[in-house]
Amino acid sequence: MAYELLKKHKSFDGETIFCEHESASTKTKMKFSAFLPKDLKEIKNAIIWLSGLTCNEENFITKSGVQRCLADSDTMIICPDTSPRGLSLPKESESYDFGTGAGFYVNATTEGYKGHYKMYDYISKDLINILRNDFGVSSFSITGHSMGGHGALILGLREKGTFKTISAFSPIVNPVVSPWGQKALKGYLGPDTDTWKQYDACELVGSGNTSNSKILIDQGLDDEFYEKELLTQNFEKICKSSSQSLLVNYREGYDHSYYFISSFIKNHIDYHLENFN
Amino acid sequence: MAYELLKKHKSFDGETIFCEHESASTKTKMKFSAFLPKDLKEIKNAIIWLSGLTCNEENFITKSGVQRCLADSDTMIICPDTSPRGLSLPKESESYDFGTGAGFYVNATTEGYKGHYKMYDYISKDLINILRNDFGVSSFSITGHSMGGHGALILGLREKGTFKTISAFSPIVNPVVSPWGQKALKGYLGPDTDTWKQYDACELVGSGNTSNSKILIDQGLDDEFYEKELLTQNFEKICKSSSQSLLVNYREGYDHSYYFISSFIKNHIDYHLENFN
Repeated sequence: MAYELLKKHKSFDGETIFCEHESASTKTKMKFSAFLPKDLKEIKNAIIWLSGLTCNEENFITKSGVQRCLADSDTMIICPDTSPRGLSLPKESESYDFGTGAGFYVNATTEGYKGHYKMYDYISKDLINILRNDFGVSSFSITGHSMGGHGALILGLREKGTFKTISAFSPIVNPVVSPWGQKALKGYLGPDTDTWKQYDACELVGSGNTSNSKILIDQGLDDEFYEKELLTQNFEKICKSSSQSLLVNYREGYDHSYYFISSFIKNHIDYHLENFN
Repeated sequence: MAYELLKKHKSFDGETIFCEHESASTKTKMKFSAFLPKDLKEIKNAIIWLSGLTCNEENFITKSGVQRCLADSDTMIICPDTSPRGLSLPKESESYDFGTGAGFYVNATTEGYKGHYKMYDYISKDLINILRNDFGVSSFSITGHSMGGHGALILGLREKGTFKTISAFSPIVNPVVSPWGQKALKGYLGPDTDTWKQYDACELVGSGNTSNSKILIDQGLDDEFYEKELLTQNFEKICKSSSQSLLVNYREGYDHSYYFISSFIKNHIDYHLENFN
């Protein structure tokens, strides 16, 4: 087994587990949580959940209520941490939106970060390998929130041989033009903005990296980051002009919090489950 | 309005709110959270949730997934903090199981504590008044976890004119003989063990303080506190000999955590809802 079980809690007849493993991509130990519905032998599919800024492997699995949505399915969910930790790189712990807890799901190329901040490879290689080899899973889909919604979109669009379906809550759809995105992409990739585009969902769809299945997005209209950081409508426009099937549910009165996510997580889980079956 | 709204999050078409108010019983500010299903004008009933040691007003409403269970009902849930805070009383902050976060739902009589640690009155008077006057609620039930399960049992049994139904997760049913209970009852009430009995569910049922409705309890069998602190079977025995209707669901493999609570919260909510209607 390529991972160490740190703790487990029986949940909805299945198990919520917390694990740690050595990552070949980040060259650090990495943690993840997962929910396994009751009969592990029958688990065929996995949904990868990518969390947002400041989160670790615990927030979503504790707050979303996702276990109830998967309890009777043949599908697990796995929730990795959002960055390597404890490396003491320059600027790694100075702000909430760069470094620790803010890996942005890219492969860093800048000094210091290029040795460890390989979150794109960590998700698309290490985590997929664990799911295949240790959990016996053969089909995958991907979703996430905010920075993790961005991660789900770029990983889903680029790795379309791996991920059957893509969904996102409040994703950062156009990081090359949003303040969070610009700070992170410059820090991890350097000043050449051309290199940023491979990690921007709008740029990817615009250059023909489309998904064969509909992309599902939920976006709260009282989300304080909607207009400045998330830019959902940029993605709507580019999907329309690129014939990428997309459903955006704008949700009146909802904010950026886990209270929003928990309200609509069942819709997203059901969407992925339908497409596995 | 007798409370101040600190924050609110739209959830399941309703609202998860966090509030603060001046308590006549504790003579401090007290906080609570609540979930209000979508049409506040139609809310008729309230379930009071009492949390366990170390918790505050946030744990349950964030981790339990209760919103999904109440979204389509005419019933709100309210989750008070577990003690007064910030008083700097002797020993108030030295341990996790006494003082701050550990009010035990009693009216303290010991020096220092007697001026503020009136959690029994806080729940049965202050909180009920807010529910009646500010939320327009006329029917009540009560539930909770561990120390809060103890609180739900003693308040429900003693205030039977107020609470229609009682349920509990992993309650401390017999605090006069459990280490957590003995420490707290001695600290809040002094060494005379006779005064402790009014706050002990087994003693209450044994002396005729029974409820007209069935009491519902869920207890995990992998709960590390089950045998030493919770003593569920003592309550089963006394209920049987006192003709108190009781259903205890022993749950194989479940522990003392919120993963356990979230797995079975819907059963408890449904039980209370059935009895309101």
